[in-house]
Amino acid sequence: MNIFSRLESEVRGYIHSFPTVFKTAKNAVLVDEKNKHYIDFLAGAGTLNYGHNNPVLKQAAIDYLMQDGIVHGLDMATSAKKAFIETFEQYILKPRALDYKLQFTGPTGTNAVEAAIKLARNVTKRHNIIAFTNGFHGVSLGALSLTGNQKFREAAGVELGNVHHAAYAGYFGDDVDTIAMLDKLLTDRSSGVDLPAAIIVECVQGEGGLNTASMQWLKKLSTLCKQHKILLIVDDIQAGCGRSGSFFSFEKAEIYPDIVTLSKSLSGFGLPMSLVLFKPSLDIWKSGQHNGTFRGNNLAFVTATTAIQKFWADQKFQTELAQKSELVSSRLRHIVQKFPEAELTHRGRGLMQGVAFRNPDLADEVTTQAFNLGLVIETSGSRGEVVKLLPPLTIENETLEKGIDLLTQAIEQVVQDDTHAKTLSTQSKSMNKLQGAVS
Amino acid sequence: MNIFSRLESEVRGYIHSFPTVFKTAKNAVLVDEKNKHYIDFLAGAGTLNYGHNNPVLKQAAIDYLMQDGIVHGLDMATSAKKAFIETFEQYILKPRALDYKLQFTGPTGTNAVEAAIKLARNVTKRHNIIAFTNGFHGVSLGALSLTGNQKFREAAGVELGNVHHAAYAGYFGDDVDTIAMLDKLLTDRSSGVDLPAAIIVECVQGEGGLNTASMQWLKKLSTLCKQHKILLIVDDIQAGCGRSGSFFSFEKAEIYPDIVTLSKSLSGFGLPMSLVLFKPSLDIWKSGQHNGTFRGNNLAFVTATTAIQKFWADQKFQTELAQKSELVSSRLRHIVQKFPEAELTHRGRGLMQGVAFRNPDLADEVTTQAFNLGLVIETSGSRGEVVKLLPPLTIENETLEKGIDLLTQAIEQVVQDDTHAKTLSTQSKSMNKLQGAVS
Amino acid sequence: MNIFSRLESEVRGYIHSFPTVFKTAKNAVLVDEKNKHYIDFLAGAGTLNYGHNNPVLKQAAIDYLMQDGIVHGLDMATSAKKAFIETFEQYILKPRALDYKLQFTGPTGTNAVEAAIKLARNVTKRHNIIAFTNGFHGVSLGALSLTGNQKFREAAGVELGNVHHAAYAGYFGDDVDTIAMLDKLLTDRSSGVDLPAAIIVECVQGEGGLNTASMQWLKKLSTLCKQHKILLIVDDIQAGCGRSGSFFSFEKAEIYPDIVTLSKSLSGFGLPMSLVLFKPSLDIWKSGQHNGTFRGNNLAFVTATTAIQKFWADQKFQTELAQKSELVSSRLRHIVQKFPEAELTHRGRGLMQGVAFRNPDLADEVTTQAFNLGLVIETSGSRGEVVKLLPPLTIENETLEKGIDLLTQAIEQVVQDDTHAKTLSTQSKSMNKLQGAVS
Amino acid sequence: MNIFSRLESEVRGYIHSFPTVFKTAKNAVLVDEKNKHYIDFLAGAGTLNYGHNNPVLKQAAIDYLMQDGIVHGLDMATSAKKAFIETFEQYILKPRALDYKLQFTGPTGTNAVEAAIKLARNVTKRHNIIAFTNGFHGVSLGALSLTGNQKFREAAGVELGNVHHAAYAGYFGDDVDTIAMLDKLLTDRSSGVDLPAAIIVECVQGEGGLNTASMQWLKKLSTLCKQHKILLIVDDIQAGCGRSGSFFSFEKAEIYPDIVTLSKSLSGFGLPMSLVLFKPSLDIWKSGQHNGTFRGNNLAFVTATTAIQKFWADQKFQTELAQKSELVSSRLRHIVQKFPEAELTHRGRGLMQGVAFRNPDLADEVTTQAFNLGLVIETSGSRGEVVKLLPPLTIENETLEKGIDLLTQAIEQVVQDDTHAKTLSTQSKSMNKLQGAVS
Repeated sequence: MNIFSRLESEVRGYIHSFPTVFKTAKNAVLVDEKNKHYIDFLAGAGTLNYGHNNPVLKQAAIDYLMQDGIVHGLDMATSAKKAFIETFEQYILKPRALDYKLQFTGPTGTNAVEAAIKLARNVTKRHNIIAFTNGFHGVSLGALSLTGNQKFREAAGVELGNVHHAAYAGYFGDDVDTIAMLDKLLTDRSSGVDLPAAIIVECVQGEGGLNTASMQWLKKLSTLCKQHKILLIVDDIQAGCGRSGSFFSFEKAEIYPDIVTLSKSLSGFGLPMSLVLFKPSLDIWKSGQHNGTFRGNNLAFVTATTAIQKFWADQKFQTELAQKSELVSSRLRHIVQKFPEAELTHRGRGLMQGVAFRNPDLADEVTTQAFNLGLVIETSGSRGEVVKLLPPLTIENETLEKGIDLLTQAIEQVVQDDTHAKTLSTQSKSMNKLQGAVS
Repeated sequence: MNIFSRLESEVRGYIHSFPTVFKTAKNAVLVDEKNKHYIDFLAGAGTLNYGHNNPVLKQAAIDYLMQDGIVHGLDMATSAKKAFIETFEQYILKPRALDYKLQFTGPTGTNAVEAAIKLARNVTKRHNIIAFTNGFHGVSLGALSLTGNQKFREAAGVELGNVHHAAYAGYFGDDVDTIAMLDKLLTDRSSGVDLPAAIIVECVQGEGGLNTASMQWLKKLSTLCKQHKILLIVDDIQAGCGRSGSFFSFEKAEIYPDIVTLSKSLSGFGLPMSLVLFKPSLDIWKSGQHNGTFRGNNLAFVTATTAIQKFWADQKFQTELAQKSELVSSRLRHIVQKFPEAELTHRGRGLMQGVAFRNPDLADEVTTQAFNLGLVIETSGSRGEVVKLLPPLTIENETLEKGIDLLTQAIEQVVQDDTHAKTLSTQSKSMNKLQGAVS
Repeated sequence: MNIFSRLESEVRGYIHSFPTVFKTAKNAVLVDEKNKHYIDFLAGAGTLNYGHNNPVLKQAAIDYLMQDGIVHGLDMATSAKKAFIETFEQYILKPRALDYKLQFTGPTGTNAVEAAIKLARNVTKRHNIIAFTNGFHGVSLGALSLTGNQKFREAAGVELGNVHHAAYAGYFGDDVDTIAMLDKLLTDRSSGVDLPAAIIVECVQGEGGLNTASMQWLKKLSTLCKQHKILLIVDDIQAGCGRSGSFFSFEKAEIYPDIVTLSKSLSGFGLPMSLVLFKPSLDIWKSGQHNGTFRGNNLAFVTATTAIQKFWADQKFQTELAQKSELVSSRLRHIVQKFPEAELTHRGRGLMQGVAFRNPDLADEVTTQAFNLGLVIETSGSRGEVVKLLPPLTIENETLEKGIDLLTQAIEQVVQDDTHAKTLSTQSKSMNKLQGAVS
Repeated sequence: MNIFSRLESEVRGYIHSFPTVFKTAKNAVLVDEKNKHYIDFLAGAGTLNYGHNNPVLKQAAIDYLMQDGIVHGLDMATSAKKAFIETFEQYILKPRALDYKLQFTGPTGTNAVEAAIKLARNVTKRHNIIAFTNGFHGVSLGALSLTGNQKFREAAGVELGNVHHAAYAGYFGDDVDTIAMLDKLLTDRSSGVDLPAAIIVECVQGEGGLNTASMQWLKKLSTLCKQHKILLIVDDIQAGCGRSGSFFSFEKAEIYPDIVTLSKSLSGFGLPMSLVLFKPSLDIWKSGQHNGTFRGNNLAFVTATTAIQKFWADQKFQTELAQKSELVSSRLRHIVQKFPEAELTHRGRGLMQGVAFRNPDLADEVTTQAFNLGLVIETSGSRGEVVKLLPPLTIENETLEKGIDLLTQAIEQVVQDDTHAKTLSTQSKSMNKLQGAVS
């Protein structure tokens, strides 16, 4: 029994999907202790948008360490933090005409969500929050109450309250207007759905299976919030920092959310960092009221600053990103057509796309096969039915194509095996019938 | 208005106590942008037990980066994680005969606490947890319900349930046996206090004001838990990793808690990292059930491994620690005697000691004065009445003595001013009376 | 200021709608202290299905008192309780082939609901309950969480949890299949709607505005519950005991709910009494676990027994009821046609019918006008937009017709005034415009 | 199997303790269907303070029915209600200089408690309530959260929140000042005990085992509430209406609670009725916000009015009550001395007194024996260790003495049997030892 089985809790997860010990990594390639190379279509579940060990970011980190820069600073003012705030204002907020204040929370996505809903509840003096079907927002108690998945919910050990789960865009089919439904529930003073402090939404549901909300739906949601004086929180932890095609996933909808949460790829280098943005008028926090030891992870500030300067100072990165997204779309549409027997559906946008299988078991087998072929890729969705491509946004086109080749190969293998198994099963049933008839 | 006032949320805290911009740091000394030096008696609120930028740890981090080691690995197996687990087993668990499994949670203390109470609730199928008066365990919703302080509790915006707060050691005075009280409440099936899944305790309450539980009290608590089949959780986030004098704060009590949470100084370098330890029989987690993007902060694994190897492989570090603790005790006892008018009380153990002021305003002024003199130090306690010394455990004796000299100077100044103010006030009252008599 | 204003809490309600002091009553007629007579279309909000002071029931009560029968018996066995159980089995359960055990709770509807949901939660070990939009189930804390109306919910002073409010039959229009929607939410393990212990439903929503579920919808609901192993609770407190046309409101749907709550007209005489019926296999109560001082209101048992014997031993009563229901339907349809300008909608079934006004203010004025004309009638619905007819089921046809005449008269008056006011308003606006033009 | 076993839920309780079918009753004597007579020392668990079928009250009820008085009136104004309010003001409130408004809730004690805590929470905008160890306040969800007993709490099926259970008078022994403890918890802003809306207390804990609070403790509690701006609720449902020696159980403490709940003996005749009294300044209820079908149980108003006029218009009744209380005290003190081997303790005051057994099993057997001898009496206390005397306050001295004679006889029998059993057990053990030695 290896040391992980012996000493690490059964809670460990990805280690089962990718049973090897990884040692080094560079951009979109992971290398294990036996020197086997893998293309990385997981990218830290969306945390490594700029790839592993980006040399520019790495150098910035090393330089900072060499100069004995502050590594841990609680929420004291530091040069590194100052540089981050300035850079974030200059290249992210100003060009998008977004007026936000910044709150640095404990450096996990769930902590950012906890802060966001606390703030919304305190500002509005209401307790209810509306979250959406298939949403994922974290697993600390407050965030967990917003998360839809039963596997996580059941682990709470206590009741998860103060949240009403409403139907996401397209949840009941394309014909059903889920915003109109929500409007009726909120307008009716006798619906039993308490007026919420906030509605929290992911513009693309990463864990939920790459469900996407249209820009029109998001606009209507924003209008609904304004009409009912509800705060709109966009949880951009997975879809943000460029993953969906623009820095924020809501940019094309031309909305101005009241609160936005960021984490994952924010530091740009895989270092823990989180940020809550909110309209200045909402800033009713008392000093120190939401604290956390690592809310000043200064090494992350350094790489985050460098990442923004390198990738978001001009349009180049986004243009390439659009091209890669189109490449992925095109290839996935082709895959859908190529395997009609698998009844695949194309999902997602930007560089968070994938294919949904009718049969979740096949999706699972595809990722297993892919790993054997040298591709790290995972499933998502309520039944694990979606094979999700989350490559680094900086992935070279060649590596991207090669990864999709491997994926295609894995699907082909799984689909063939499945067809074969079905044929056998049918034959076997016929045989049984025959034998039944004979005996 | 500087950029922090303009763009950072009002939630920022320490920046108010220490109004300067820090740039670099080395062991126990912080340097700001104007090159002013400060002795650090805060140490990241107990996160920098081995000081800022310890050269050995720093080198390990740089080497790892230079080799393109995995920086972010979700909970996949990596060489860095393997090394940490092996080292932790060898130098921490085995010598103390502690049989624990390790769960790496999102790298914040509050996340470790969330995982700990989830696990306890799931194992026991009970929902109640007993926490103690003046305890602090974090501010995400689950941890917040355990935390005593109203400032944090009020920010929840929702009700904090499933927790009964019981009196900590000595809470009602030394004569009142708070364990016996708890025993009665738990034995009486009609007390209204539901049988808890767990009791969570800090052996020294850092935020709560350096209240300490005696080893005997901890033993009785452990026995109580066994009798009622309640899990005992020691939250060693602040008092652990050597801060209280030994690696775990409960070692001298010779108890074997069911669950232990660690964070803060675990990475040794100020990098975010958290760990939950529990008895193997409790490991009923389902794969991935408590997740978190940064639960594999591999750079932190690297520095954590190095820190354990450097400081905990033999007794040298602990011996020095004992000497420094005694030095601090001795100096603080002297301070208590020196300023009888301040009615000081000596608090704490290990290198988390301090002095409690009868009047919290004076404690606050002392930290302000200290900062002006070049000493970074904070208060704690329910009224902020305790000036708390949390220097790096690696602080040089000379710096430690100098820091205490500055503290003494600050106290002297504040006490003199206070006495002067009182005299003036008395004179003024006398004068008023006199004038009243004359007019 | 009269004694009610001076000493009774502001919580008093109906006294405002019907500002007089009632003294005596007989069947469908109330008499006040000034000897003014009122036709009663409220009937104790559905509590007096057999009218006020029914002579047969009254005599039974008096006889019982004269013999010093047990009036209060906690839940001890008494002759009166025995007689009730026997009678209920013989005339209610057996003819309908319903196999239920009986639980006598504290004699309020809300208490019956509290017991029902406790039982469902204990049997299933789940905490969530699904209740419907516009449902009303009482105002004690457990029942209140099921109730939709914000006026009541806000009074809780604490959070109302463990309930998901789903859309009732027809809530989103006749085209939207709300059962299919619920099925999807319950099937999807990631919807965020926890699998409930029970679904609680009123077949006709009395307080909610006389919304009715079709028999087909109820059947589908019952099937849904079986598929997901959810208990089905029919709250028949207002619609039961004949009010909807049959003893139970669900009879025509040919379903067999797991749990049924009864109260209001159960005692037949306006005396407090409640009853929870459930399938014998669910009877996991421990002795005395849901108690209450007045769960043995024996005088109510006496009148309840007599009422069942008198009204439910044969079909006569139900036949008359059907005729009266048809009479009301016919008259209300006529009213709807007669006042097109009021945009009325006909609602309800059995002897709980009414008309919904587009403008709730008019509905309110109608009840005020009606009272002036000698008719006691109230509104219901989330906006108070429905004028609700709840006459005693025993009302004489003549009185019923006369009551509807008065109602028609009230509507006519209100509609005329409204039309007049609108005309004036239009003229006034024109006039203003004219004056504006002139000046 | 009789009809109760067959059709009534397993939740039935007292029927097990008193296995017969009662038919009639008069003052303190119950008669079963076989014409066996029992002295009633249970009195509807304190509901029949004026005995069964008091002839004056009975006549008032019959007269009212004969005149077709309003039996059920929702919360409309009726002559019967008016008379009650006037009488209550004249004979109860005014002589005690108590300025209260009256709220008629659903006619159960638990409903009155629900209303009381709702009001307290709404007035103060706080959610926490402090209740006491061993308190009983009902079993609907809100009241249940206040109740200490696990048997009831476990039945909730959901979490019971927003309540902190504090130690009642004498809970930790006579030396421990539980008010001082509470004061510290409430003063300390970091205790984790949230400032409550209200403290709810029974001056004598009926179900909890006849624990009594001294008048001094109650005074201190009242002062504590004022200092912290907490509302004081006295739950006088069992101890009120004369049971403890005066109309309200708190009269001798000379306190003026903010809210008082009454039920049980309020109607005087065993009819369901409840009342919440509160200071006029607290009356922030919106019209109809806490409703309930039977909140206007007019027949109960009639008997309640008559009862107050008959028993509380002068001092006669209270004087007799004091004499009977003294008689019971004297007899119970004698019983305690007579059976030293049972290690009895005398408990309670007024006509709610009893004896606590060291061994709860004996208490249980005593009530069984007593029933066989013709005495209906029950146990209370967290372990069922207290035999509780709750005779009608109107019991004739002769019947009272006879009842206590029967009780003494029952105790004697049980104690003798217990001693005999212990002797046998000791002999048996000696015998076993002997045999062991021999073999």
